[in-house]
Amino acid sequence: MGETILILGGARSGKSRMAAKLAQGLPPVTYVATATVDQADPEMVTRIARHQTDRPAEWTTLEVPRELEGTLSSLAQREGSLVIDCATLWLTNLILGLGGGQELDNEAVLEKVRRAASALRGPGRVIWVSNEVGSGIVPMGVLTRRFVDLQGLVNQELAEHCDQVYLCVAGIPLRIKGSG
Amino acid sequence: MGETILILGGARSGKSRMAAKLAQGLPPVTYVATATVDQADPEMVTRIARHQTDRPAEWTTLEVPRELEGTLSSLAQREGSLVIDCATLWLTNLILGLGGGQELDNEAVLEKVRRAASALRGPGRVIWVSNEVGSGIVPMGVLTRRFVDLQGLVNQELAEHCDQVYLCVAGIPLRIKGSG
Amino acid sequence: MGETILILGGARSGKSRMAAKLAQGLPPVTYVATATVDQADPEMVTRIARHQTDRPAEWTTLEVPRELEGTLSSLAQREGSLVIDCATLWLTNLILGLGGGQELDNEAVLEKVRRAASALRGPGRVIWVSNEVGSGIVPMGVLTRRFVDLQGLVNQELAEHCDQVYLCVAGIPLRIKGSG
Repeated sequence: MGETILILGGARSGKSRMAAKLAQGLPPVTYVATATVDQADPEMVTRIARHQTDRPAEWTTLEVPRELEGTLSSLAQREGSLVIDCATLWLTNLILGLGGGQELDNEAVLEKVRRAASALRGPGRVIWVSNEVGSGIVPMGVLTRRFVDLQGLVNQELAEHCDQVYLCVAGIPLRIKGSG
Repeated sequence: MGETILILGGARSGKSRMAAKLAQGLPPVTYVATATVDQADPEMVTRIARHQTDRPAEWTTLEVPRELEGTLSSLAQREGSLVIDCATLWLTNLILGLGGGQELDNEAVLEKVRRAASALRGPGRVIWVSNEVGSGIVPMGVLTRRFVDLQGLVNQELAEHCDQVYLCVAGIPLRIKGSG
Repeated sequence: MGETILILGGARSGKSRMAAKLAQGLPPVTYVATATVDQADPEMVTRIARHQTDRPAEWTTLEVPRELEGTLSSLAQREGSLVIDCATLWLTNLILGLGGGQELDNEAVLEKVRRAASALRGPGRVIWVSNEVGSGIVPMGVLTRRFVDLQGLVNQELAEHCDQVYLCVAGIPLRIKGSG
């Protein structure tokens, strides 16, 4: 049975780099991008394009803004490494109704997360990337507060399902669950 | 002499669950809730109600929005576990003048924290819960900046008084002070 | 060759106190303050004055809001400890055009950071202080998002150059890189 790994961290803390390093150690690499460009945000478009350029050419990329649990089920028997980057954008798509679907309520979101987290126990290595967003002030807006709460619950759910959890701080991965 | 424990973490990081687990290990449990409903915020009312439902029926609950140091002094000789959930809402009540008292200045707040933190060295286990709020951007408003600064100082004060300190990340408690 | 140390942490997490303690262990101490008062912000003026009062009288203080890399090069051969407090205000000065210079773009900022980080390998101890700002919600404004991203990259750059990295939480320094 392959190992499942969660990589947490704040903005620009080295999460994706850590995920890439772990994935390169067990090729071939399938990269599941949850980013969606349908919000027509030029900054996001630039960011997605930069991330695409940064990825090795031999990786297989799938763009899955919403139906992660189905995609992951269908990939469960593959060998190599699977990177899901990232749970935060997936959550954003689900609660804002982006990526070709409706806005979901909290229970529906968490049910999808549970199904996705447990879909993937196969021979390969699974690497989830997710953001720490709850260590600043409690935000003013109701939607943003809901997002912060849900992201915390999603991270707890993923951490419980994963064999190893890393917290990235300034590019340094700290192992906070599982042994080497 | 009982041990004193501080549990830190961001929003929905598993702090209260960790506190409950530690308290259940040494019954009976007294739970000091600092939440106040006098701000008539429906979201907060819902959250308090959910927390009340989540707590075991055999716990004794005290609602203490402001005068924690007196309550804790009076409880110092009790056996079992005492959970104070949480320092962040207590701080909010003190600086906003909620819970039946006036707005306090920084020195008055910190003096109350010092008195509360040192009031409680008795036979039982004391478990403080508090939020990490200072790892996001520096907020724009003067009051919010003051809150962030004070929360940092309150956490330092509590950490210094406590025998053990845990930082919760995605539901995983990391011990950052004291030994097992 | 002296050791280089990075101290990270959120607001009021005990970073400057940790820096002072490390510096006092290897005198004489040179303190490089990056704060600038040219923004005419009364809160910042008060904060800078308080920090000045807190510092030991025997420390040498240099105020360097922008040209850190030149200052650090010229200090590379000194003995004792050098504290740079802090990279966050330095970054703010560079991107906002404060402290007697223009607004710099991201590449220019990162080039200055790389030059400053590598300027200082001499006999003395070098202690950088910097803020964790990326673990809250993604901020709304374009400039603030840019600041958060750059601060993350700056911290990664400094962490890579430093022999030891500490993360301060509630006044507790956690060593996350290097050995004791």
